[in-house]
Amino acid sequence: MAINLIRFLPANAAADAGPQWGVVFGGKIAPLAGSYPTTADVIRNGRDAARQLTAAQATLDLGSVRVLPPVTSNQQFICQGVNYASHVRESGLDPANFPFNTIFTKASSCISGPYDEVVRPSHVKLLDYEIELGIVLGRDLIPGEVITEDKLDEVLAGVTIVNDVSARDVQLPQGQFYKGKSYRTFGPVGPLLVLLEPGEWRRWRELKMTLTVNGAVRQQAYCGEMLFKPEQTLTELASLHDVHIGDLIATGTPAGCAAKAPGKLVMFILKHFMSDAGKWKAFIAKATKNPLYLQPNDVMALSIRTDDGSLDLGLQRTKVVSL
Amino acid sequence: MAINLIRFLPANAAADAGPQWGVVFGGKIAPLAGSYPTTADVIRNGRDAARQLTAAQATLDLGSVRVLPPVTSNQQFICQGVNYASHVRESGLDPANFPFNTIFTKASSCISGPYDEVVRPSHVKLLDYEIELGIVLGRDLIPGEVITEDKLDEVLAGVTIVNDVSARDVQLPQGQFYKGKSYRTFGPVGPLLVLLEPGEWRRWRELKMTLTVNGAVRQQAYCGEMLFKPEQTLTELASLHDVHIGDLIATGTPAGCAAKAPGKLVMFILKHFMSDAGKWKAFIAKATKNPLYLQPNDVMALSIRTDDGSLDLGLQRTKVVSL
Repeated sequence: MAINLIRFLPANAAADAGPQWGVVFGGKIAPLAGSYPTTADVIRNGRDAARQLTAAQATLDLGSVRVLPPVTSNQQFICQGVNYASHVRESGLDPANFPFNTIFTKASSCISGPYDEVVRPSHVKLLDYEIELGIVLGRDLIPGEVITEDKLDEVLAGVTIVNDVSARDVQLPQGQFYKGKSYRTFGPVGPLLVLLEPGEWRRWRELKMTLTVNGAVRQQAYCGEMLFKPEQTLTELASLHDVHIGDLIATGTPAGCAAKAPGKLVMFILKHFMSDAGKWKAFIAKATKNPLYLQPNDVMALSIRTDDGSLDLGLQRTKVVSL
Repeated sequence: MAINLIRFLPANAAADAGPQWGVVFGGKIAPLAGSYPTTADVIRNGRDAARQLTAAQATLDLGSVRVLPPVTSNQQFICQGVNYASHVRESGLDPANFPFNTIFTKASSCISGPYDEVVRPSHVKLLDYEIELGIVLGRDLIPGEVITEDKLDEVLAGVTIVNDVSARDVQLPQGQFYKGKSYRTFGPVGPLLVLLEPGEWRRWRELKMTLTVNGAVRQQAYCGEMLFKPEQTLTELASLHDVHIGDLIATGTPAGCAAKAPGKLVMFILKHFMSDAGKWKAFIAKATKNPLYLQPNDVMALSIRTDDGSLDLGLQRTKVVSL
């Protein structure tokens, strides 16, 4: 059965005490003995011990601890773009023009906790959300290896919830996604790293993502709708560069973000009558009137689970604040 | 005076011996006692000892060792794009449309040695070179701090030669630069990490980059031509995400790459009569006839030095092989 791994700081921890790991049973945590500074460490050396923990050992109230992201900032944070046809279309683009797997990165130091505040920098006007299924490596990839779907359980350790928070007014005009998606706190991850059993990996397509802002559903889709599946992405990454145990891959977001393509007339005017720099100024000026972009005090709630509830990655809940 | 730090494996090293560091004097290396697994370690704990080494202690022939990149693959590899007006123009773009500092990353595992082979993957047809000044952090940046030019010596440890090898037929059609620039061996760094003294930092603009292919000069420019200077880039990065001691920033490339903008008539036809996907197919088909793209057995030689030779980052020399 799936193991709900969590990383946390106990309420009564000494100032110099490091984060701990544990397994969640209901509203309680069974602490994992030992120290695992990184996600790689806990997967390599703590996974078997985590599997042995039982509900009887869950003595710590979940509400009493500070929950930390289950992926540590030493790990690579690799992202897929345009990986759901619905998101490609709402961005005003044609999926046929993306016959490749778009890969970019977020700075690992933007990873933040599942209940931490998301800080909007003072110059950012178009703050957007993107719910994504995060997959976490269970071992190093071998250069050039081919990963098939039936090897997912051997290559991957587990799954988690990622919010790929994006400053659209930085990301889109500047072309390269890295900067607009790498500000501190732009990568809430967790609460759980759910370690799946082989039979459970076969159900990844049934995981349903739901993101709400202030209670209103903005994004909802099944992970099975993704264009480039985990085994394809892992195979391509293995051919490209090193990927290590504990690394995080965010597999792309479906429709429902605040950023939408402008209407056809606007697009025509932008394309034919304005320079690139002027085009972006006009886009941003218009978009600031879009009420869907995140504002201070907005609360995002993200869940990923199967409809029958047997796989449940928990609830990530973050509030937007302005710098 | 500048310290020419080098990382290497001795010829007679035991199979389990790790890399060593040393200081180069002429054709000899003065080995640095102790073990420094990362660039961060040697800057933090070995810099003072390196400064004490003298030519009299340089007993090891440079030609007898395997020279390794002076930046280790645990460090961040952050890059600036379109940071020389000459390169922007030859790419068919208008510098006025880039009123921002383009930031992207290469996978750190693409870092390779200064004399290692550059491996062209079998599907890549348009392999290109980019000489860049690499600046290496001497301490962690403090979130939000402002770096002024007179603080460069306090913030930075040194400079090195970077070749930002690029698969144009992956990078350009796919939009995000990460993948086409992150294949293994696409990041030759070194040979030296030159630790500069405060007075020497004031001369960084005088560093002249020269890249040749098979002896013919392809790129030559002074670092002072760069658009966003190191202090601006460091200040922006400090506001964005964490940057650590030992991290590498490649500061962009000047004109002279193989990739050039197509002629005006071709641009007009591409823009008005072809879909995006078709446009890229046409671009790639035409570009494969461009003899400037790298071919197997081509030899690249990269140097960065002041005209008076008093600052000299050494000679990087790599051969292209096909997979």
